[in-house]
Amino acid sequence: MKALIIAAGDGTRLGPLTVSRPKALVKLLGLTLIERVILGAREAGIEEFVIVVGYMGGKVKKALGDGSRYGVRIRYVESLDWERGNGLSVLAARPYLRERFLLLMADHVFDPGMLKLFLERSPWDEGVTLAVDERVDGNELVELEDATKVFFQDRRILDIGKGVERYNGFDTGIFLCTPLLFDALEESVRAGDSTLSGAIRLLASRGRAMAEPVRGRWVDVDDEKTLKKAERMLLRGLSKKTDGPVSRHLNRPISKRLTKRLVGFGVKPAHLSLASFLLAVLGAILFFLAGAKRSYLLFLTGGSLAQISSILDGCDGEVARLLYQTSELGGWLDSVLDRYADAFLILGLTYYSLSHANPGFSISLGFLALIGSFMNSYTAIKYDLLAKHLGEGFRFGRDIRMLIIFLGALANMPLPTLAILALLTNTENIRRMGVFYRTEGSSA
Amino acid sequence: MKALIIAAGDGTRLGPLTVSRPKALVKLLGLTLIERVILGAREAGIEEFVIVVGYMGGKVKKALGDGSRYGVRIRYVESLDWERGNGLSVLAARPYLRERFLLLMADHVFDPGMLKLFLERSPWDEGVTLAVDERVDGNELVELEDATKVFFQDRRILDIGKGVERYNGFDTGIFLCTPLLFDALEESVRAGDSTLSGAIRLLASRGRAMAEPVRGRWVDVDDEKTLKKAERMLLRGLSKKTDGPVSRHLNRPISKRLTKRLVGFGVKPAHLSLASFLLAVLGAILFFLAGAKRSYLLFLTGGSLAQISSILDGCDGEVARLLYQTSELGGWLDSVLDRYADAFLILGLTYYSLSHANPGFSISLGFLALIGSFMNSYTAIKYDLLAKHLGEGFRFGRDIRMLIIFLGALANMPLPTLAILALLTNTENIRRMGVFYRTEGSSA
Repeated sequence: MKALIIAAGDGTRLGPLTVSRPKALVKLLGLTLIERVILGAREAGIEEFVIVVGYMGGKVKKALGDGSRYGVRIRYVESLDWERGNGLSVLAARPYLRERFLLLMADHVFDPGMLKLFLERSPWDEGVTLAVDERVDGNELVELEDATKVFFQDRRILDIGKGVERYNGFDTGIFLCTPLLFDALEESVRAGDSTLSGAIRLLASRGRAMAEPVRGRWVDVDDEKTLKKAERMLLRGLSKKTDGPVSRHLNRPISKRLTKRLVGFGVKPAHLSLASFLLAVLGAILFFLAGAKRSYLLFLTGGSLAQISSILDGCDGEVARLLYQTSELGGWLDSVLDRYADAFLILGLTYYSLSHANPGFSISLGFLALIGSFMNSYTAIKYDLLAKHLGEGFRFGRDIRMLIIFLGALANMPLPTLAILALLTNTENIRRMGVFYRTEGSSA
Repeated sequence: MKALIIAAGDGTRLGPLTVSRPKALVKLLGLTLIERVILGAREAGIEEFVIVVGYMGGKVKKALGDGSRYGVRIRYVESLDWERGNGLSVLAARPYLRERFLLLMADHVFDPGMLKLFLERSPWDEGVTLAVDERVDGNELVELEDATKVFFQDRRILDIGKGVERYNGFDTGIFLCTPLLFDALEESVRAGDSTLSGAIRLLASRGRAMAEPVRGRWVDVDDEKTLKKAERMLLRGLSKKTDGPVSRHLNRPISKRLTKRLVGFGVKPAHLSLASFLLAVLGAILFFLAGAKRSYLLFLTGGSLAQISSILDGCDGEVARLLYQTSELGGWLDSVLDRYADAFLILGLTYYSLSHANPGFSISLGFLALIGSFMNSYTAIKYDLLAKHLGEGFRFGRDIRMLIIFLGALANMPLPTLAILALLTNTENIRRMGVFYRTEGSSA
């Protein structure tokens, strides 16, 4: 299926941001608005695009090229009448769309998951289906006066437009269309309404416009305020369900701020994985030096590096997700490096504790902490899948382990740190095995 | 879809084995022949069975019950004429089969994967489709004089029977049928032939019998010789593609012999996982004692226990696969216990090496060996999936690690053992990361 993207607008309300570029090329967290739409649609399986350009169309073409950079094919259509209404921009693409197609707006930022779900759910092919957001009350992402409202019953759209008084949904700017839309547009334009909403209203009056409620976040970027909203929405989406409490309340808030700055610099996720790993290795080296020189300051510095590494460890995934560069391999290499970093830190911690306590005791606890940490990560691979399913909340993971190491360094208590790590990690592993066992038991 | 199983025969050729029981209830590696057919079909998605009984039918009914024990539903039909030909046994089930059904023989042992593939490939529903084995030359699992031969062209069966001279396939006893078969059976019986092959021949003459070539092992159990063949076939199938060289040439041959004996005793796979784990823990304890008492004998005994544990570690999976008791959880619990066992053994080895070498050196190597071993297992989760895809042969895994520990104990060289483990495991992990990296690179 092809996707038609309307990218003709000038975006005057974005002020200085659109002086030298069209709205579609406004940057948002490392990608232009239209790049986000293309990459989001690609994730939902779309590989062919028709893009209608208007204001500074040449710049859009130059920026996106033939799409091969994004792994898609792009064809451009120029709309000469884009200023007279977005309906005319849609109409300009008619010669290239003979079958069912997806219609998207270049200035709408949305969750790719929302689009995927919409496409799975909308097999209707006798008109136009609009993805509507039913959260009409207290939806802070929507600007009420600018939003296109929809009133629908039994999935049939009864009214649509900015000025609609009675409504139960917002137009998300995502449509699944048949070429029927073009006929409606021509008719609507002849009758004096050259907006897309006008054509949808016409189709609705003939029972040919459906509303499909979707779940997911989206923002219609119109001005600097909504651009900020879109940024907040994207950043908020970077948290993961498997984030532990330390990650949620300490690491993520900081790593997101870092990520927000990093995405602009072309930093690759793999570089960040490596940086986080090297920081942890440096921390471990400082632990060894601290042990050799019996220096609390070096020990504390090492512990601090460990915690900084733990925070930075969130950035690789965040940058990858924001820039649509996630890869299974990337996540896997990161997790392997994390395990090695864990091991070096515990090794260093054990060495440092030798200067504080009975060697046999230190070494035994060091081994147990190492086993426990490893198994914590080993069991997490399966546990995270299950926990999502069970809705289990708490998860003892790397975020907590690293904070314990930092706090242990701060308190200059290496041996209790190892003891706590050994105890908590192994207890958690046994708990997880119990969860599995009960789950299997109840499903049998 | 329902499956019809013909279990009416007496199996006189099995001699003493069928004096007090019908052929279907002959035991083969812990399960009766018919249980293997039911569980194999269940794995291919079949949940409803119609079983035709004849000779000692009451015993079959009593043994299998309503099928709830196997998670399926079973309905029985008695064939009064079973001695006059298997076609009559099939015909007896007519009232219970109004739609397409699978026809199986209680005395045919087959790979469940073969049935699954056959069902996926055979959507034809205008007659009968027979799964045929095209390996007519040198197929040691087939007894030539007893086999039903098939001659087919363009998937159409042209001739079928034991005495067929020119043939290019064997009848595997697996049929996908429509009720059309019953009409053909009645006609064939009236014409004096009450065998199933007779009815298939009749259908073939009208272009209603198709042959679907299948890959997979199967044995038609007729006498003690073929029963032995079936046993060998099942045991051979217990090796895994991910088996390392030590496993393939040393551990598996022994563990299979053990498994062959164990399946008869009702031992659960989880018990074997636990036994293997406890043996390894005992080995680790002996390592500690050996270190405390500076005793080579204790060290060697510990190392031997480790190797025995490694061999026994194959049995849990083998028993589970033979008895259709595999579970994702079982495999997972086993792998978690293995990691703990690995850790304890390396811990013990490190402790023992303290009495032989510089402590700092021992402990460092111990840590590195522990990290490497863990990461060896951690990376294996993903590597094994990829290696299957890439066709990569060699894999440095637990089988080799445990043998190294045993050989190290034999040579009484704990420190070199740790050094070799540390070197080989970590090198292998880096190699695997390289394989991933290259794979990602070439697929991008």
